[in-house]
Amino acid sequence: MKASALYATALAALTATLSILPVRAANPLPSWNDTAPRKAITAFVEKVTQEGSTDFVPPTERIAVFDNDGCLWAEQPMYFQAFFIFDRIKALAPQHPDWTTRDPFASVLKGDVKAVLAGGEHALLEMAMATHAGVTTEEFDKIVTDWIATAKHPVTGRRFTEMVYQPMLELLAYLRAHDFKTYIVSGGGIEFMRPWTESVYGIPPEQVIGSSIKTQYEVRDGKPVLARLPELNFIDDKAGKPIGIQAHIGRRPLMAFGNSDGDFQMLEWTTAGKGPRFGLLVHHTDAVREVAYDRTSHIGKLARALDEAPKRGWTVVSMKDDWMQIFPAK
Amino acid sequence: MKASALYATALAALTATLSILPVRAANPLPSWNDTAPRKAITAFVEKVTQEGSTDFVPPTERIAVFDNDGCLWAEQPMYFQAFFIFDRIKALAPQHPDWTTRDPFASVLKGDVKAVLAGGEHALLEMAMATHAGVTTEEFDKIVTDWIATAKHPVTGRRFTEMVYQPMLELLAYLRAHDFKTYIVSGGGIEFMRPWTESVYGIPPEQVIGSSIKTQYEVRDGKPVLARLPELNFIDDKAGKPIGIQAHIGRRPLMAFGNSDGDFQMLEWTTAGKGPRFGLLVHHTDAVREVAYDRTSHIGKLARALDEAPKRGWTVVSMKDDWMQIFPAK
Repeated sequence: MKASALYATALAALTATLSILPVRAANPLPSWNDTAPRKAITAFVEKVTQEGSTDFVPPTERIAVFDNDGCLWAEQPMYFQAFFIFDRIKALAPQHPDWTTRDPFASVLKGDVKAVLAGGEHALLEMAMATHAGVTTEEFDKIVTDWIATAKHPVTGRRFTEMVYQPMLELLAYLRAHDFKTYIVSGGGIEFMRPWTESVYGIPPEQVIGSSIKTQYEVRDGKPVLARLPELNFIDDKAGKPIGIQAHIGRRPLMAFGNSDGDFQMLEWTTAGKGPRFGLLVHHTDAVREVAYDRTSHIGKLARALDEAPKRGWTVVSMKDDWMQIFPAK
Repeated sequence: MKASALYATALAALTATLSILPVRAANPLPSWNDTAPRKAITAFVEKVTQEGSTDFVPPTERIAVFDNDGCLWAEQPMYFQAFFIFDRIKALAPQHPDWTTRDPFASVLKGDVKAVLAGGEHALLEMAMATHAGVTTEEFDKIVTDWIATAKHPVTGRRFTEMVYQPMLELLAYLRAHDFKTYIVSGGGIEFMRPWTESVYGIPPEQVIGSSIKTQYEVRDGKPVLARLPELNFIDDKAGKPIGIQAHIGRRPLMAFGNSDGDFQMLEWTTAGKGPRFGLLVHHTDAVREVAYDRTSHIGKLARALDEAPKRGWTVVSMKDDWMQIFPAK
């Protein structure tokens, strides 16, 4: 190769590099394919954050709410909190000899998940109370922190906090870089999420909304504690989501992200607000890299919200087509 | 006056001005006398915000909680929300002909406040339900916004939002300048406070914790609303305050500010935390510039918290001695 050709090649390479670099550096959503959902998100965010724009929204009003199960992290073959409940039942069994013969506990101890799930909501509630109450808030925080640091998903062998969706992590960071406050609004237990949402999602405990049991203030040996009681306080699902949003935030979100009919009212409430609003559904379409499910799934059922998305102007993400990557690299 | 004397006078004046200016600019709490409470506040804030200090607390953990009635704004001769309730009863009376003969409403309409208050908590709750429920959250927001913009205190003739304590406004700003998140934790109604706390205190709706009634999600003519129901949800007072703090914030505050025994548990819970914590009580000692009351007051009773403050290390502010100014200049 002549010197001039070498020079030309080097120059071409440099030019190519330079032309790519700014694009990469400027791409805050690298795991999103350049398809309609990504375009809709960035167009909306640019519109509401552009000073002087008629659609400009001041930073204090930039509230974005995210469902957790199936939206920020996976939820199959069952809600990850159910794995926690089962592990707690096993850990607590020695203190409850009757559990070996009493369902749903007996089925859990035998490893018969099908029988457990056949017990339905009543069984789930009974197990949640038995495993989430009877300790103080600080004790429960430690139990969750210890569990989440070690427990692994039975299919992938990953820690549960490694089964979060990479594109959604990027989206959370992108919105915060545009002065959005990001909230979780989940049917899951509020105190089950808080111990790890800040390190995993960058969402602090005060921006986590979820289901809860009642607590009671007590002074034990001069030390005040909040005792967790086996009594339901609030179910943050379906029509409970707008109620939870109003109770905690006190204003209507600008953007809402969900993946199931349990998020229908949250998206409906959000996008019925005045001015620009944004609703998005994550559709689990990727049977190879994750799990494909919607209308008939026992978890994360998505039917009505999917049917009404077009007429309501909600964006639908096909995980298979719109996401370059599902989980973070190991 | 000779030119040289004029010059000397002008120079002296300039020097005096310059020597005062930096002090003023550096004083974030100008309405606080240079007495023990101010010293305790600034020493604490400097300690926990000094990087490298053993007492350093990262910004995410810098949570400061404030009672509202009697701590951020006045509460005599009765809670300001009670004036709102009475005004609402008068406004709604035409739709409730039975109120003219039914107590406590009849006493309100006759202007017999003593008879109303004699009805105790039961009467208050009945009036609160009758005036706070039956509308949507958006309608209630507007009702409060309109009322607070015009209603005036019967004794001072000031708007209620002008009866906030100037030293506490400065304290809120001072703490936020040191990366504290400031919260209201009040026995008052959460939706009664939210419409005006951001403009008056710089505290956004998501950082207001208070008492609440239940709401219900409904779709009316295709438009989703949150209907306010005549059913108590939560009383954010006494032992309810730590419960409300945990429900909304999910971590223990670093600093707590109150003025009555209703704040006892909030201060106890806050100052029982590990590491440096700060508790402060505003003691209403100024009969001339405000109202002097504590142990025997029917509102804002302060006895146990005052008695236990020394041994618990809580700072007590005497409004008469420690505050240079009570209300903002008109």
